[in-house]
Amino acid sequence: MIYLDNNATTKVDEKALEAMLPYFCEEYGNPSSIYDLAHTANSAVRRARNVIKDFLGANDSKEIIFTSCGSESANTAIKGTLELNRAKKHIITTKVEHPCVLNLYKELEKHGYRADYIGVDSNGDLDVNELISKVDKDTAIVSVMYANNETGAIFPVDEIAQKVKEINPETKVFVDAVQAAGKIPINVKDTKIDFMGISAHKFHGPKGIGALYVKSGTMVSPLIVGGHQERGKRAGTENVPYIVGMARAAELAMENMDDELSRVKKLRDMLEDGILTKIKNARLNSTSKNRVPNTTNIGFLYIEGELILLHLNDEGICASSGSACTSGSLEPSHVLRAMGVPFTSLHGSIRFSLSRYNTEEDIIQVIQTLPHIIDKLAKISPFQKELGEILRPC
Amino acid sequence: MIYLDNNATTKVDEKALEAMLPYFCEEYGNPSSIYDLAHTANSAVRRARNVIKDFLGANDSKEIIFTSCGSESANTAIKGTLELNRAKKHIITTKVEHPCVLNLYKELEKHGYRADYIGVDSNGDLDVNELISKVDKDTAIVSVMYANNETGAIFPVDEIAQKVKEINPETKVFVDAVQAAGKIPINVKDTKIDFMGISAHKFHGPKGIGALYVKSGTMVSPLIVGGHQERGKRAGTENVPYIVGMARAAELAMENMDDELSRVKKLRDMLEDGILTKIKNARLNSTSKNRVPNTTNIGFLYIEGELILLHLNDEGICASSGSACTSGSLEPSHVLRAMGVPFTSLHGSIRFSLSRYNTEEDIIQVIQTLPHIIDKLAKISPFQKELGEILRPC
Repeated sequence: MIYLDNNATTKVDEKALEAMLPYFCEEYGNPSSIYDLAHTANSAVRRARNVIKDFLGANDSKEIIFTSCGSESANTAIKGTLELNRAKKHIITTKVEHPCVLNLYKELEKHGYRADYIGVDSNGDLDVNELISKVDKDTAIVSVMYANNETGAIFPVDEIAQKVKEINPETKVFVDAVQAAGKIPINVKDTKIDFMGISAHKFHGPKGIGALYVKSGTMVSPLIVGGHQERGKRAGTENVPYIVGMARAAELAMENMDDELSRVKKLRDMLEDGILTKIKNARLNSTSKNRVPNTTNIGFLYIEGELILLHLNDEGICASSGSACTSGSLEPSHVLRAMGVPFTSLHGSIRFSLSRYNTEEDIIQVIQTLPHIIDKLAKISPFQKELGEILRPC
Repeated sequence: MIYLDNNATTKVDEKALEAMLPYFCEEYGNPSSIYDLAHTANSAVRRARNVIKDFLGANDSKEIIFTSCGSESANTAIKGTLELNRAKKHIITTKVEHPCVLNLYKELEKHGYRADYIGVDSNGDLDVNELISKVDKDTAIVSVMYANNETGAIFPVDEIAQKVKEINPETKVFVDAVQAAGKIPINVKDTKIDFMGISAHKFHGPKGIGALYVKSGTMVSPLIVGGHQERGKRAGTENVPYIVGMARAAELAMENMDDELSRVKKLRDMLEDGILTKIKNARLNSTSKNRVPNTTNIGFLYIEGELILLHLNDEGICASSGSACTSGSLEPSHVLRAMGVPFTSLHGSIRFSLSRYNTEEDIIQVIQTLPHIIDKLAKISPFQKELGEILRPC
């Protein structure tokens, strides 16, 4: 199997699993209890919090709260900000966010919030000036992703936070860093960012655990109300094994960052170049100059994307046509639509997202296999005339 | 070590861990993706949902949604009901709920809700008539626990739901079954209960996964908004390993139910009788006739509970003075206060909660050890006169 869908989820690193194992059947104490068994669990959580602090480049481990996923982190930051200041009714985000932000914003609009959705250009880059021009006295929160899950485009979140605060120092800034964490170095402490969310299963940690950075002094109302855990910001018994597993995965991601930025990037570029060279109706969708090193998104004109994926699956190759969180719907990608990708390749766009587990052999195999698939599908495409002009130009 | 704090958390059953293991590093696909790897994960989640349906005695696996914990289940049911019907402003619960309900109700009161908190008698049994008398046209939700975490008292949730609906069929009923699941059989389908929440780590599953039963036809607004997962009721990539682990733990709990109801109950009774017989200043707090089989709560007059726990810890015995979720505060238990437990034993009350892993040897050991601890602490108690009258009556 060749797994090229690491933006959807990743294989858990064996070392992360190994770190988790003692906390299931042996060191299973509730960290809030007072006996020795609980102290072991409690210390493990404390150590993990410190690792995540370093992973995000935060100042203090008190700024890290553990959540159950990236979506919970986003919902906590956004709802938890609005809850504390119900008078402010203006919210800003981008047109290309993950559904956990976009769908939440649409819900909030139904409840009297005024939302601005900022667009991107054809490279997938954000119109920062437009975003900043929308900030006013009534703006409660700006939610902007660090890196886009479909194109890999990196948004200048430090610059955005800085400029937002210049106009309205009270406006909170949430950064969804789910697709950045583990792929590029993060250093939140020198920024004006108030909240940053991550999810372990995007960097070889387990599914079902995430974290939210909350800058010292920033208030947030808990999404899950209850016990005193996470300094009152998130109730529920701590998921000790996964907290430990996420921290170990974060350590491993930090150790492997150079590999990600060099070898993985080289493999991604090799895949991209190989496909664009060998397949005439292939068009690069992810053309941002500032991209995470593992992601490419390529459109195949006049070919149905789901069919490409099914044929890739037959060859043991896993890829996707968009976010797993929006799959199941037949709607074309909201990200590619926001970029103005033409209808002709919108439905035939494939995202390949690599990880440190990929090898050069994987990439060679995909470059060899894909042209045959596209050839076969081109023959049954209803757009024979249009395809003919591209594949066999006079 | 003798672990008698199973209402705080439990050891994960090795078989549950074993069931989870393949989903970390091998079958790690995102259930929403379309390739074979994802189908394996997706099928595992579907099978697990069916097991939890049986565990709760629900009609249909579509009634089960996976959450990250019991607190999330409670917050989803309560907030998700109020969100959909903002006109109704009356809410009812009991004085002895878990903090995830009580603290949420206190929050809601700040936002214009009128809350009634129903009391219990000195046995810990709920005043059902008082509860029912409070239900009116404006009542949006009644939240009542199935079994109390500190005393083990079982509340007649079926009867309560039935009577609530007779007065106001639109009032929703949420049952926090976190302390009942795995200890007594549950059969929700023949009741009028709308929502029921459980947490895996209370029945030898992992911490960080729970479920919420939502009766067919009952609407609920998602707490975590985002992707389409859990039929739109809970966003976030499914925690496949833990979902599988919770289902396996539920199967094992069903298999071991007879053991729980007979052997574990016998051990609990043996512990209770042994302590009450051998220790003169011991008073039983959990006197309800209808109790889960694993729990007892005993007050030691004029002795400080935290000191007892520390001495028990020195002997390798784990117990607690209340809910782990309220520990860290010096407030005496809100449950025992609601029962009218006198000040003299309130601060010296200890909860012992057993599991199928406990043996007769464990119990003999505790019965032998505890009198020495109480003796020692009685000698340093500031209440020498009062203790003297109990321990050495004329």
